[in-house]
Amino acid sequence: MSLEQKKIAVLAEDKYENLEAWYPILRLREAGVEVDIIGRDAGCEVCKSKEGYPLKVDFKAREIDPADYDGVIVPGGYAPDRLRRCQNVLKLVKYQAENNGLVAAICHAGWVLASANILKGKTVTSTSAIRDDLVNAGAHWTDEEVVVDGNFITSRHPGDLPAFMKAILEFLIS
Amino acid sequence: MSLEQKKIAVLAEDKYENLEAWYPILRLREAGVEVDIIGRDAGCEVCKSKEGYPLKVDFKAREIDPADYDGVIVPGGYAPDRLRRCQNVLKLVKYQAENNGLVAAICHAGWVLASANILKGKTVTSTSAIRDDLVNAGAHWTDEEVVVDGNFITSRHPGDLPAFMKAILEFLIS
Repeated sequence: MSLEQKKIAVLAEDKYENLEAWYPILRLREAGVEVDIIGRDAGCEVCKSKEGYPLKVDFKAREIDPADYDGVIVPGGYAPDRLRRCQNVLKLVKYQAENNGLVAAICHAGWVLASANILKGKTVTSTSAIRDDLVNAGAHWTDEEVVVDGNFITSRHPGDLPAFMKAILEFLIS
Repeated sequence: MSLEQKKIAVLAEDKYENLEAWYPILRLREAGVEVDIIGRDAGCEVCKSKEGYPLKVDFKAREIDPADYDGVIVPGGYAPDRLRRCQNVLKLVKYQAENNGLVAAICHAGWVLASANILKGKTVTSTSAIRDDLVNAGAHWTDEEVVVDGNFITSRHPGDLPAFMKAILEFLIS
């Protein structure tokens, strides 16, 4: 399958990290990948980054079928603290984890993976602030700009975005 | 010991929840308790709540002796995400946990207790957003306005503050 046939969900909530959402969205669209912005069932319709930059939600998590997507990207900031509270968001992430879809998380996004209960035995990175939460959820944690463990791709912060997206595109092409 | 002989540390960082810091500070001072505001070693000197309300730090965590205090209160908001990154903050919290000092946490403050590695077997509450992190750290989690388990006192959100402070004062008097 070429990149033009792939469809990726990017999760959105208020207080998202501006570039951790927008760089993946724009980079995937540039590569021909279809991108949908998915929000919480009870979340924002136009979400605002920590600085107030708007990101319009295409569908609530309850409105989509996880099987229609080839993967999910979870941006950081404090958006993951809200995203993890939505069972249909967790269902989408868990479906991708269990069906060899892309599960990509950066910075604080690992909280969503922890609540989806998919981290046992996985090697990941994140902002060091949530290392303890990921380790307690069963992950092996390492401090690298990008960690690829099967279909899980994780990075630490916006400075890692070039390496993060390179690994994501390689996964989607393979 | 009377309340006038007690000294409590309240932790401060940017993005603290306004009332979860200020109601305990004022209520304890009204009761005659000495209150110090303790910040991260690398943290703010005048911390700002999520809305920008200022809270001046009295001492950095490295400047105090945990044994000089009778307990620690950790307000919520997103301040705990930063507080947990400071080893001397965790040392203070762990010292209180292990020496029958007050360990009080509300809302997202449980993250600091998780990183202090003091939650195994403890019954606690919190904002439901971080329930999974506390359970993964070994706690029993329950949804109540205040939970007292020995020297651990926890609540869920600002609406629980009256019950939270009543339990804290009862612990300090006993």
